[in-house]
Amino acid sequence: MEKGIDAWILTIGNEITNGVITDTNRETISKELRAVGVAIKGMSSVPDDVDAIKDALELAMERARVTIVSGGLGPTEDDKTAQGAAALLGAPLELDKEQLSRIESRFQKWGRPMAPSNAKQALFPAGAAPIPNDYGTAPGFVIQRQDRIALFFPGIPREMLPMLRERGIPLILEHFKAPLQVFKNRTIHVYGLTESRLGEILADLAVDEHNYHLAFLPRFPIIRLRIDVRGDNEREVDALLAEKQEQIEARIKENIISVDGRSMEQVVLDLLEDRNMTIGLGESITGGMIGEMLTRVPGSSKTFLGSVVSYSNAMKVEALGVSEKTILSYGAVSGQCAEEMAVGARRIAKATVGLSVTGIAGPDGGSDAKPVGTFFVGLAIDENVLSRRYFLPGERAWVRKLAAMQSLDLLRRYCLGYRLHGETYQSDSSTSSRT
Amino acid sequence: MEKGIDAWILTIGNEITNGVITDTNRETISKELRAVGVAIKGMSSVPDDVDAIKDALELAMERARVTIVSGGLGPTEDDKTAQGAAALLGAPLELDKEQLSRIESRFQKWGRPMAPSNAKQALFPAGAAPIPNDYGTAPGFVIQRQDRIALFFPGIPREMLPMLRERGIPLILEHFKAPLQVFKNRTIHVYGLTESRLGEILADLAVDEHNYHLAFLPRFPIIRLRIDVRGDNEREVDALLAEKQEQIEARIKENIISVDGRSMEQVVLDLLEDRNMTIGLGESITGGMIGEMLTRVPGSSKTFLGSVVSYSNAMKVEALGVSEKTILSYGAVSGQCAEEMAVGARRIAKATVGLSVTGIAGPDGGSDAKPVGTFFVGLAIDENVLSRRYFLPGERAWVRKLAAMQSLDLLRRYCLGYRLHGETYQSDSSTSSRT
Repeated sequence: MEKGIDAWILTIGNEITNGVITDTNRETISKELRAVGVAIKGMSSVPDDVDAIKDALELAMERARVTIVSGGLGPTEDDKTAQGAAALLGAPLELDKEQLSRIESRFQKWGRPMAPSNAKQALFPAGAAPIPNDYGTAPGFVIQRQDRIALFFPGIPREMLPMLRERGIPLILEHFKAPLQVFKNRTIHVYGLTESRLGEILADLAVDEHNYHLAFLPRFPIIRLRIDVRGDNEREVDALLAEKQEQIEARIKENIISVDGRSMEQVVLDLLEDRNMTIGLGESITGGMIGEMLTRVPGSSKTFLGSVVSYSNAMKVEALGVSEKTILSYGAVSGQCAEEMAVGARRIAKATVGLSVTGIAGPDGGSDAKPVGTFFVGLAIDENVLSRRYFLPGERAWVRKLAAMQSLDLLRRYCLGYRLHGETYQSDSSTSSRT
Repeated sequence: MEKGIDAWILTIGNEITNGVITDTNRETISKELRAVGVAIKGMSSVPDDVDAIKDALELAMERARVTIVSGGLGPTEDDKTAQGAAALLGAPLELDKEQLSRIESRFQKWGRPMAPSNAKQALFPAGAAPIPNDYGTAPGFVIQRQDRIALFFPGIPREMLPMLRERGIPLILEHFKAPLQVFKNRTIHVYGLTESRLGEILADLAVDEHNYHLAFLPRFPIIRLRIDVRGDNEREVDALLAEKQEQIEARIKENIISVDGRSMEQVVLDLLEDRNMTIGLGESITGGMIGEMLTRVPGSSKTFLGSVVSYSNAMKVEALGVSEKTILSYGAVSGQCAEEMAVGARRIAKATVGLSVTGIAGPDGGSDAKPVGTFFVGLAIDENVLSRRYFLPGERAWVRKLAAMQSLDLLRRYCLGYRLHGETYQSDSSTSSRT
């Protein structure tokens, strides 16, 4: 693809610029083009206004070799895309008889009369080549300016997408006589590192190469690393993908949740199932979030047996069997309490693993010794009962989410034999590392 | 606003142009600006590339009096928005000490060291005025070219939106000395009606008037109705707002969760607290979601005492005291089981109200008699124990979310003396109405 084909995406409609709809055509078109090696230079959107369309189209065609336009080809008065294109070309609109009869026969097939306004959909700028629409009434069209082209499609996604795939992309590749390249990508889920920290660790791997790009896609508290590669053939591309993945794994192995898109909860369930283990939870600070996460996974009932959400101290004692003395001596937010909760959860759920978390989500309830953002995770597994202390201050929703993730991550790390994070309660001024 | 202020929206990021994420900032910004009378001329998006940003920014500022930019203010190498703005102005980037110390103190507050790369976020084009960020680390900034301005915000929606509202919009209105009109809006949360049904009921109220606009903003399973009004003075605006709200309330009173932005969970907690009641949950199909929802609300521990997530039958019997005979005779997914779960939850949590839900979320586990999407809600309250059957088929996440919401809504309706939805198990072919 030598110099490569680049493209600009232009979507048209008042409903888009007024923020009334979420315009997903942009991302759909982007993905389709990138899959055949076309780079996206930019995107724009303008209202249904002839001058605005003409202006945006001109700018787009100046900036990229291909412009893909969607929207504004409907039958109503406010659809003005063809007029905008005609204005740019300084050409009149002309009726295309063949497309008109296609539209008419479509209505015949439906057994409905064609509204006179639909005839407008067969008007194209003189010199444009129609793109037939097998999925609806509005045909698209292509215009050319010097060696550049712009393709116009209706805005309805279920018409636009197949037209782009079946007619638009072959047309582009043919126009530019582009050789075929192979494109692949892989997404690695990372937990336990901030975006800036991860950026530092992977700085040299984040530099773009001709055929390789690494993107950081945070979706709190997970960061997704997306590796995009391309090459002349399947083997070359697979080798490059494997090489880049290995380089990343070598640096952050224990923080990688999955390389196949699996979520933390799915990974933990899979690890337990591999070991023929079942799990019961004792949740306090998370209020039920960990159970909710695990049960998102279809089939989780094989492994997840239940949870006791002991928000009150009475329920910690009553349902989980935490001793009143523990609560009096150490408080409900303590490693000791977390351990007894884990043991109790395992017992009451008749599970082989008990996992618990207790802490202070805020905004109130913190103290000097245990400020908001402090939580303890307890784990009863194999012959071990252990707990870890964390301090991840922030707003309530943030603390709760991290408490849930940190709990699952402690269990994940235990199962995989990785280093456990957090502090043990035996030593409050512990030197053990903290995530 | 005489000639009126117009705006261009520019969003920046490879993840946007590559179609990896759905860029919702565009519509959010559009709605916010339109609510204060700013018209949207167009939108564009470009990758994290200095030249592309400079070019797009120049075009935007030529086309509209205000440009709103989001994205590319992060700490990593690929965030290049400030450089792009500096290139357009022909100005160097300069470190703003005040913003740097704000970022540093944010990290201090979190008890975490600041990564050196975060300092980059305090670099602005010379002459730019910073916009402090109270919601994250990346400050925004404003630049001016002739009489036009461009405001830059981070791309993270939960930071961008409040910054735009609290600092950006006042700044724009002040800059253009926009004649003061009064703008107000109110958001009504509606539950239990589909968007199309609600659209029918309110069709005549959804027609735009000069000084009134009604927007339907679905956020599954809630639909938010946003009333936007404007006028010359406070009194006029308040009267119009009250009039429109009354018209809506007259038609869908029992489906209105709140008119002040409160969520379903907050409303239920408030209703219980008003009645000096406390609640314990027995959750099955929802896996902990209802507890998680209730405990999102700060201070919920006064009212929410705990939940037993009895995913296994053993746990229903063991922890909630459901009789084995009930499970054998009617199944774990039955009105009878739901009622015993509610009674058990009330007892074990030592609460005054017990609420439970058991059902089939899918994709597997359905039968002819109880297909996927069937669930039963149980409620033990005052001297009553009751249950209701629902059938809301769909994909797993959808069914679970509706099971949680329908449970809370049953309790809400009970507290308010509204009609209860769902079917009672005494009559499987019941004539009672269904939501």
